[in-house]
Amino acid sequence: MSHNSFGHLFRVTTWGESHGPAIGCVVDGCPPGLPLAEADIQPFLDARRPGTSRHVTQRRELDAVRILSGVFEGRTTGTPIALEIGNKDQRSKDYGEIARSFRPGHADIAYHLKYGVRDYRGGGRSSARETAMRVAAGAIARRVIGPGVTIRGALVQIGADRVDRARWDWEETRRNPFWCPDAATAARWEDLLNATRKAGSSLGAVIELVAEGVPPGLGAPLYGKLDAEIAAALMGINAVKGVEIGDGFAAASLAGEENADEMRMRQDGTVEFLANHAGGVLGGISTGQPIVARFAVKPTSSILTPRRAVTVEGEETELRTVGRHDPCVGIRAVPVGEAMLACVLADHLLRHRAQNPDAPGQPRLPRENA
Amino acid sequence: MSHNSFGHLFRVTTWGESHGPAIGCVVDGCPPGLPLAEADIQPFLDARRPGTSRHVTQRRELDAVRILSGVFEGRTTGTPIALEIGNKDQRSKDYGEIARSFRPGHADIAYHLKYGVRDYRGGGRSSARETAMRVAAGAIARRVIGPGVTIRGALVQIGADRVDRARWDWEETRRNPFWCPDAATAARWEDLLNATRKAGSSLGAVIELVAEGVPPGLGAPLYGKLDAEIAAALMGINAVKGVEIGDGFAAASLAGEENADEMRMRQDGTVEFLANHAGGVLGGISTGQPIVARFAVKPTSSILTPRRAVTVEGEETELRTVGRHDPCVGIRAVPVGEAMLACVLADHLLRHRAQNPDAPGQPRLPRENA
Amino acid sequence: MSHNSFGHLFRVTTWGESHGPAIGCVVDGCPPGLPLAEADIQPFLDARRPGTSRHVTQRRELDAVRILSGVFEGRTTGTPIALEIGNKDQRSKDYGEIARSFRPGHADIAYHLKYGVRDYRGGGRSSARETAMRVAAGAIARRVIGPGVTIRGALVQIGADRVDRARWDWEETRRNPFWCPDAATAARWEDLLNATRKAGSSLGAVIELVAEGVPPGLGAPLYGKLDAEIAAALMGINAVKGVEIGDGFAAASLAGEENADEMRMRQDGTVEFLANHAGGVLGGISTGQPIVARFAVKPTSSILTPRRAVTVEGEETELRTVGRHDPCVGIRAVPVGEAMLACVLADHLLRHRAQNPDAPGQPRLPRENA
Amino acid sequence: MSHNSFGHLFRVTTWGESHGPAIGCVVDGCPPGLPLAEADIQPFLDARRPGTSRHVTQRRELDAVRILSGVFEGRTTGTPIALEIGNKDQRSKDYGEIARSFRPGHADIAYHLKYGVRDYRGGGRSSARETAMRVAAGAIARRVIGPGVTIRGALVQIGADRVDRARWDWEETRRNPFWCPDAATAARWEDLLNATRKAGSSLGAVIELVAEGVPPGLGAPLYGKLDAEIAAALMGINAVKGVEIGDGFAAASLAGEENADEMRMRQDGTVEFLANHAGGVLGGISTGQPIVARFAVKPTSSILTPRRAVTVEGEETELRTVGRHDPCVGIRAVPVGEAMLACVLADHLLRHRAQNPDAPGQPRLPRENA
Repeated sequence: MSHNSFGHLFRVTTWGESHGPAIGCVVDGCPPGLPLAEADIQPFLDARRPGTSRHVTQRRELDAVRILSGVFEGRTTGTPIALEIGNKDQRSKDYGEIARSFRPGHADIAYHLKYGVRDYRGGGRSSARETAMRVAAGAIARRVIGPGVTIRGALVQIGADRVDRARWDWEETRRNPFWCPDAATAARWEDLLNATRKAGSSLGAVIELVAEGVPPGLGAPLYGKLDAEIAAALMGINAVKGVEIGDGFAAASLAGEENADEMRMRQDGTVEFLANHAGGVLGGISTGQPIVARFAVKPTSSILTPRRAVTVEGEETELRTVGRHDPCVGIRAVPVGEAMLACVLADHLLRHRAQNPDAPGQPRLPRENA
Repeated sequence: MSHNSFGHLFRVTTWGESHGPAIGCVVDGCPPGLPLAEADIQPFLDARRPGTSRHVTQRRELDAVRILSGVFEGRTTGTPIALEIGNKDQRSKDYGEIARSFRPGHADIAYHLKYGVRDYRGGGRSSARETAMRVAAGAIARRVIGPGVTIRGALVQIGADRVDRARWDWEETRRNPFWCPDAATAARWEDLLNATRKAGSSLGAVIELVAEGVPPGLGAPLYGKLDAEIAAALMGINAVKGVEIGDGFAAASLAGEENADEMRMRQDGTVEFLANHAGGVLGGISTGQPIVARFAVKPTSSILTPRRAVTVEGEETELRTVGRHDPCVGIRAVPVGEAMLACVLADHLLRHRAQNPDAPGQPRLPRENA
Repeated sequence: MSHNSFGHLFRVTTWGESHGPAIGCVVDGCPPGLPLAEADIQPFLDARRPGTSRHVTQRRELDAVRILSGVFEGRTTGTPIALEIGNKDQRSKDYGEIARSFRPGHADIAYHLKYGVRDYRGGGRSSARETAMRVAAGAIARRVIGPGVTIRGALVQIGADRVDRARWDWEETRRNPFWCPDAATAARWEDLLNATRKAGSSLGAVIELVAEGVPPGLGAPLYGKLDAEIAAALMGINAVKGVEIGDGFAAASLAGEENADEMRMRQDGTVEFLANHAGGVLGGISTGQPIVARFAVKPTSSILTPRRAVTVEGEETELRTVGRHDPCVGIRAVPVGEAMLACVLADHLLRHRAQNPDAPGQPRLPRENA
Repeated sequence: MSHNSFGHLFRVTTWGESHGPAIGCVVDGCPPGLPLAEADIQPFLDARRPGTSRHVTQRRELDAVRILSGVFEGRTTGTPIALEIGNKDQRSKDYGEIARSFRPGHADIAYHLKYGVRDYRGGGRSSARETAMRVAAGAIARRVIGPGVTIRGALVQIGADRVDRARWDWEETRRNPFWCPDAATAARWEDLLNATRKAGSSLGAVIELVAEGVPPGLGAPLYGKLDAEIAAALMGINAVKGVEIGDGFAAASLAGEENADEMRMRQDGTVEFLANHAGGVLGGISTGQPIVARFAVKPTSSILTPRRAVTVEGEETELRTVGRHDPCVGIRAVPVGEAMLACVLADHLLRHRAQNPDAPGQPRLPRENA
């Protein structure tokens, strides 16, 4: 049991604090013989990197990843892959207030209550900086899953403003700084975030992830369920407060006949589902339909507005957070969510393969008994 | 790694199919010396038991639990506790259609695609019957947690009809067959479910869980987060499609200053939070505030309305499910959700204790460094 | 983390005390579609069963195993397999002395010191009775491994009397009550054990296990080593105090050129090792040679000779164990050792398959990179 | 499940190859508030370091460890501790023969058969270099265990030459380059190893570990046994082929009355054992007596004597290993064995504490039920 690892057969352990000398992770269980180089990981880190638009924290980090083990002559060897990123832009400053006080809505006080000690510099271990390693691990997970599976994420809501789904265009997510799949919405968000930043406030967000091409059979009853582990992976991202699979909470309002996805057969003998309310998972197992998951990110607690707080010594105080921070941390959560989903899928792919040497690629019927 | 276990130090492994000779579980890691008898578990099973109102499945099971190991002279011994419940009311019938066809929205097809074989009788392993063992394990978890922690659940929504929170009364949840905390809403639901059952349809639901008295410090960064593991536990319950902690998805619409729970000091030197948007968890660690979680249950896929489906042989068919079934499985999910939350808390209590021999009981400041 | 489970992908959890109503286990991770019935398990239990010769405990148990889940129409379904054996011959007696005193060399006092409570009836959880479930799980493990792998055990030493290896005959192990591979030695042991039993004493033993046909590639660097997990599995059997792989402790006395197994190529392109000092494992990974392991079992602590002991109340006493007991528990450890080795191999086979979909069957060179 | 991790609550994951840029580990689960600096770890690394006498490999490494996370202002924070050591002395050379051939008795061929690819430079992942990280983790484990527990190791046999136990002096282990507890034996070994090195050969060894002051109650039935996990930890060290607890294999030759350690009460109400054949463990649980374990290390396979081998291409060849190597790797295994034992004890201490908040410090009777 590790509090800093996730996955079972594709297993990632991360370490590091925001203002320590470096952050890193160990990826254990990656199959041998896969081509892998730093250049395969770096683009995903660049996409997550802070400082890339004025809507995210202005911390400047190159986030250049180094592979320290597990790769030989350009291929994975089956031994653990260690990744490391140096911390460069740890602004030297007086941490007096943050060291002594607990920001409302921040993990500060929880760490203090649990451990009695915390590295308060830049949020320490609870900093979103750690998510860089998740993104790096996710890049390796994509290698394991292979090119047949496409994992994409989009921001579908900032504050109360939702994207127009009728205008959904995946290509658009790469053209605006919000991963927004709709240009018109992106334009509104530009204004919304500018106003929020000026007001010294912050906003929450909702991210939607879609994985296409996932083979059926991943996951398992009853506690190794694919959807349960996706839920844990997404809820474990900083600031996340809700997770949905498929229709999610909206499914509660549906009648049984609306919710159950009907099926028919395609000409080629594969099963076609006529809808995807289930979000690609039934009974904890993938069906071959696209996996659809959403998660909600709360607004950053580090804001300029003064808030009532308490100190380490048990005194009452007022606190406002000055410095570089994201007005909407949800934006940078998009590549992190993609990476977590990739890691869960890679893990379950290996787990499925262990029990089913001839794991099927498509939901084709009938399937012979072993 | 077990696909049929949950928890780490308080670890539950369940087994059994709906129509096999019995279902059971093994609870490993229960501390020694705790008083425990079958009578401590049975009331929770009785509350979950089918056949108790016309709004749940009419299967008749006494669900009499037997303790087969791990208890000696009325006390736990620290060795694994085996629990078992015999299956009595497995109506002998022709399973022809269910054996040959896949119900839309049901785990049938996923099991088939993964394993190529399934016990189709009564849903086999995917039957809600298995949740009896979760409830039994939850009763032991409550013993581990101790009487200082209160874990309660309520149904807050059936279909699109939500409870009136202004009229919330925990006592009321014991007076109606819906675990509804508001008598007026319960009356409406009575009519709603009658109509639904007559129409041969089904409805989804939302359950809210509240755990009060949870000590601060349970959970951990970053992948052993309390909220992440609650999310996995609840998403792993049959038919669940969404999970929220605290404000959940609504947090996305809040501004930072609305969402961050302010703090002040009480006279007795403990921290008081002025709100609980966080649902009792910050940075994956409990703060001492009530833990609040919600989960959404989709409508049962077993309905009378005919639906397009496919067969094991790959032929198209129409399917309607005749027989005893819940018009709203969400009702019976309330004690199951409570039990899962109890198990997660028991597990984290033991985990916290391992690292912190003097685990604090209340969020009192200052806490001395070890 | 479970203290009562072993294996990762082929995972066995046992429960039960010597004099409780039953003992049982849950086997999780068994691949689907394998033919399995109680008749596949029972013969292994019969071989281990007490009361079969005067050299083992005279407790009379039919040890009839029941499969309670995970098998449907004669095939495994991929869901957990629950096995159970009722306890019949729990002689009702006065446990006064055993309840109050700690037998020298017995787990009694350790349980007391750890838990403060113990089920003293028949040794409770520490009774060799639990090993019946290991044997049952081992029968399923053999199904997973398949008929190409042969796992056999033999008793090679009782007390200081060792078997004559020049006369080794596997068939002979089935003809005498000692699993002795040499008839002449078996005859000596008959006399030795009669004398030991009459003297109210007991003797230790050494068991050797050989697994032939194991494919290369099972195991892994560095902490999932095949030999390390075999060592844990064997050391975890009751009363075991030592474990060896291949030459074991004798390897310490060899020169490097004696110990290193030379290789050449066979006509068919496979590697032939010219010796097997390594016992089939190099760097924690199987090489395709026979796996050879040995373990030492201490003499039973339950003897007629009076011994100085202490009581629960902290008083000094003298203790002698009256009742049915094995003069040499090592005899019954042979099928238990075989079963544990089978479980470890099944687990590693699944683990290997997860990372290597085209796991090779024979040490043939060259192997193409994936 | 990680193939490169060990421990459960005190969990160590190592990474790195002999000739990569660095090696490292992540220690997860270390309790917060413990004083820790690089200076607490370095002395243990210095003791293990190669190049310190002519009897061990002449590779020159400073082995300067860096703490990259998990420590703040000189104290552990409860977050993962990352340690790293740079590789300096990776002699650039032609690896042609080692790259193309498999050394007899070496892990080379096993890696090839499993993975189809391997980092052959300096042994890659199978190099003894990795054990530096175990030693570093062991230093942290000692912090967790506390100063009341003393863990020491000694070399008790090189080749067939055993130490004279009557002359055992722990102080002497620090005065000679062999960790030999007897000066006379050490003098003989000096000659023995010089001769072995000149002959281009190598020798095996046996190491004995003793942990004093271990509290009773560590470990658990039945698969989380303290001795089973010690066995796995020691068998997992490079080149180890046998493990014993207490009397080990010699216990097989004892009669029951010889082997069972008698008990009496001390004046202060604690239990005194009159012997320690059990090596401090009964039923998988520590009794408060010294933990005694031994392990056998085979002779290095890298020797000057030509040996029959095969190549990657499946051709027969003759091989001799030229270069810097240990004539007796067992020497450097002493601090590694100590470290592994420390890690197992730290892990079990935390595990015990989880279930027993008031874990007793001494085997004092009676113990009140919880």
